[in-house]
Amino acid sequence: MAKKIAILGSTGSIGRSTLEVVEAFPDRFKVVALTAGENIELLAKQAEKFKPLQVACKNEYLAEKLKPLLPKGVKLLHGKEGIIACARHPEVESVVSALVGSAGLLPTFAAVEAGKTLALANKESLVMAGKLLIEKARETGSQIIPVDSEHSAIFQALQAGRAQEVNKIILTASGGPFRERPKETFNKITPEEALKHPNWRMGPKITIDSATLMNKGLEVIEAHFLFNVPPEKIDVVIHPQSIVHSLVEFVDGSVIAQLGVPDMRVPIAYALSYPERLPLPFPKLDLVKASPLTFEVPDLEKFPCLALAYEALRLGGTAPAVLNAANEVAVEVFLEGRLRFDLIPEVIRETLVRADIKEPSSIDEVINADIFARIIAHQIIDELEKD
Amino acid sequence: MAKKIAILGSTGSIGRSTLEVVEAFPDRFKVVALTAGENIELLAKQAEKFKPLQVACKNEYLAEKLKPLLPKGVKLLHGKEGIIACARHPEVESVVSALVGSAGLLPTFAAVEAGKTLALANKESLVMAGKLLIEKARETGSQIIPVDSEHSAIFQALQAGRAQEVNKIILTASGGPFRERPKETFNKITPEEALKHPNWRMGPKITIDSATLMNKGLEVIEAHFLFNVPPEKIDVVIHPQSIVHSLVEFVDGSVIAQLGVPDMRVPIAYALSYPERLPLPFPKLDLVKASPLTFEVPDLEKFPCLALAYEALRLGGTAPAVLNAANEVAVEVFLEGRLRFDLIPEVIRETLVRADIKEPSSIDEVINADIFARIIAHQIIDELEKD
Repeated sequence: MAKKIAILGSTGSIGRSTLEVVEAFPDRFKVVALTAGENIELLAKQAEKFKPLQVACKNEYLAEKLKPLLPKGVKLLHGKEGIIACARHPEVESVVSALVGSAGLLPTFAAVEAGKTLALANKESLVMAGKLLIEKARETGSQIIPVDSEHSAIFQALQAGRAQEVNKIILTASGGPFRERPKETFNKITPEEALKHPNWRMGPKITIDSATLMNKGLEVIEAHFLFNVPPEKIDVVIHPQSIVHSLVEFVDGSVIAQLGVPDMRVPIAYALSYPERLPLPFPKLDLVKASPLTFEVPDLEKFPCLALAYEALRLGGTAPAVLNAANEVAVEVFLEGRLRFDLIPEVIRETLVRADIKEPSSIDEVINADIFARIIAHQIIDELEKD
Repeated sequence: MAKKIAILGSTGSIGRSTLEVVEAFPDRFKVVALTAGENIELLAKQAEKFKPLQVACKNEYLAEKLKPLLPKGVKLLHGKEGIIACARHPEVESVVSALVGSAGLLPTFAAVEAGKTLALANKESLVMAGKLLIEKARETGSQIIPVDSEHSAIFQALQAGRAQEVNKIILTASGGPFRERPKETFNKITPEEALKHPNWRMGPKITIDSATLMNKGLEVIEAHFLFNVPPEKIDVVIHPQSIVHSLVEFVDGSVIAQLGVPDMRVPIAYALSYPERLPLPFPKLDLVKASPLTFEVPDLEKFPCLALAYEALRLGGTAPAVLNAANEVAVEVFLEGRLRFDLIPEVIRETLVRADIKEPSSIDEVINADIFARIIAHQIIDELEKD
C-alpha cells in the first residue's frame, strides 16, 4: 500500500527533492496534499503530475490565480488555515514539513497534534518550540524523523546503540564559503558571495545560515530536542567535504557515522520510508574519490552565531525562539543589502539581551516571543543604520 | 550477574586485551577458563589474578611445569582436549576465541557446538570452515560476534538497516608497512621490516598477513560467511590511518561506518557486552587530530594475496582452507628467513592449483584439506629452494 503523504512547502528545494523521491517510487507513495507559498505556477505543475486531493497556497489573491491552472477535482485552500488543513488531512499518514523559517511552526505543530508521522526539514519549529513539540508528539504518538542530513545521520547512527549509551553527538559542518576568509574582511561580504555554498544546493535563507554557521547553531538546538542530549554533549566539527553527515560517540569509544554524497533526496527518502530503506537510483559515494576527509575545530571568533546558539540553548525557554527570530530578520535585511554580514551576530546578540526570556507554556507564547524579538531586531538594525 | 567467560589463547595479544577489559569491569565478567600455548609463566600469573576454575596449556610437559605455579583449586588440563574442554565448560556463557591460525578451528567449533556465545577473533576458523560453523551455530543457537575491528565495525553498522538492504560491505585496510614501497624491492623485505605494523600492535602471524594484505583477504572470506554477503558485494579500500574500521553501504546510498582509535579492547568489550556498550575507560577518538582520513584503491599487483583470497572464496569448498594453510606455512617459513616475502603469494597460488578442492561435509574433511595443503606448500617451498 502506498503511503499517503502531504508536502508542506512543495515548491522549495526540499519539497522538489521530495517529489523526485516520490516519482522514483510511484507504488510506495501517494501525494495527498501539497502546499506552496508564492510559486503557484510550479505548484500547478506539481498538482498536474501528482494528482493530490488538495493544495494550498499563501493567500486568497494567489489562490484566485492558481484556480484555473489546477486539474479538475483538486480542492484549493489558502493561507495559514489552508496549510494547516493540509497537514491535518485525515487521509495523510506522513507529513513532510519543508516550510522555511518560523512560518513552519504552526503547520508542523498541527501535524504532530494530529498524530501524523513527521518528516521534519523545518528545523525552526524545533528550535522555537522544541519542548512543546516533543511533548505533544509523545502525547499523540506522532513520530518525528529528521530530514536534515546531519540529524538523519545521527538518527541512523543511534540505531547502533542505546540512548543511555550516547557519550556525544558530533554534528559536522561544511564551514560554509568563508571558512578560509580572513575575519577582517567579513564586513565586506556581499549577499552574492554568501549565497555560494560549496557543497549543497539549498534555499537562500539556509545558505546564508551556512555562511554564518547559524545553521549549525540551529542544528545544535534541534539535536538537543530531537535526541534529548544536553548541549555539553553536542559537538560541532568542521568537515569541508560534507561527506560524513554527522557522528555519534558511544560510551565505549565507538563512533558511528553516516556518510554519503551530499544529496538531500537520501535523508528525505529515509524519513519517508523509515524503518525501511529504498533502493534509490541516485549516485553513490566513492570513498576514494571523496578522499581526503578533513576535520577542523570551528572558529567561534569568526563565527559567533554558533556560540550564540549554544548560549540560547543554555538560557532555555523562549531564548532559542528569540535567537531564531533575530536571525531571520538579520538575514533578510542582509539579503536586502541593508545590513553588513559581520553585524548579523551583533543583531542577534543584542536581541537576546533585550528580549524577555521565559518558559513558554503554549505555542502562542512562543509566537509572541518570536514577534517581539522581530520588533527588537528591527529596532537594533535601525539603530545601527543611524550610526 | 557477572557473565562467565572462557578465553582461548589468553596469553596472546587479544587474550591479554580481553583480560584488561575484564579487569576494568570486575562486576560484569567472571573468568571461568583460560587456555594458553607455551607461555605458562604468564598463564600462571593470569590464573593468580583472575581465579579461573580451569586452565589448559599446550601439552603434558608444559602442564607439569605449570602445576606448581598455579593457585590451589584450579583444575589443570592440557592439549587439544584440554582446550576444547575449556571451550565447552558447562558454566561458561561466552567464549573468546583468540587462538592463532588453524589451531583455533576445533576449539571454536566446540564452543559453537556447545551453544556458547562466541566472541570470535580467530578468523581462520571461519575462513577454513565458514559454512559448517555458521550452520552449526544456527542449529545450536550459538551467537557469533566478531572481535576483528573490521567485522565488529560492520556488525555495528549493520544495525542501522536490514540484511536485505545491504548494497556493499567495505572493509578498510591500513595497507601495512609496504604500501608505498616499490614492488621491485619486495624480494628484499626482511621479517624485521614486515613485523613493523604502522597502526596496530598484534601478534607476528597477523602482522605479516597485514604486510601481504592476506589478512584483508582472510577478512573478506570471514565477512562473507559472517554476514552472508557474496564476494562481489565485499570491497576493500586502503585507509592508512586505521580510524574508520569499516563501512556498510545500504541500497539507499547511506554509508554507515564505525570509527575509533585503533584499540582492540573496544571491539573485544563490545563482543563481550553486546547488545550493551560498556563505558570503557580508554582513550577516545579526536577527529580533528585524526584528520585527514584518506582512502585508496588497493594495488592487487603489489599485493596478490588479496586477489588470491577472492579467488579462493569464489572457488568455494575447501579452497579457503587450502589458501589459509598455504599462507600459514609460507608465513612461518618467511619468518624463519627461508622464503622471500614476494614468494609468499606464489606458494599460495601454486598450492591452490595443486590441491584437490571439494565441498567438505565435516570438520574432519576441512582438517584433512588443511593437512594436505600444508604438505603441498612445503613441497613447493622445497622446490623453490632447489631453484
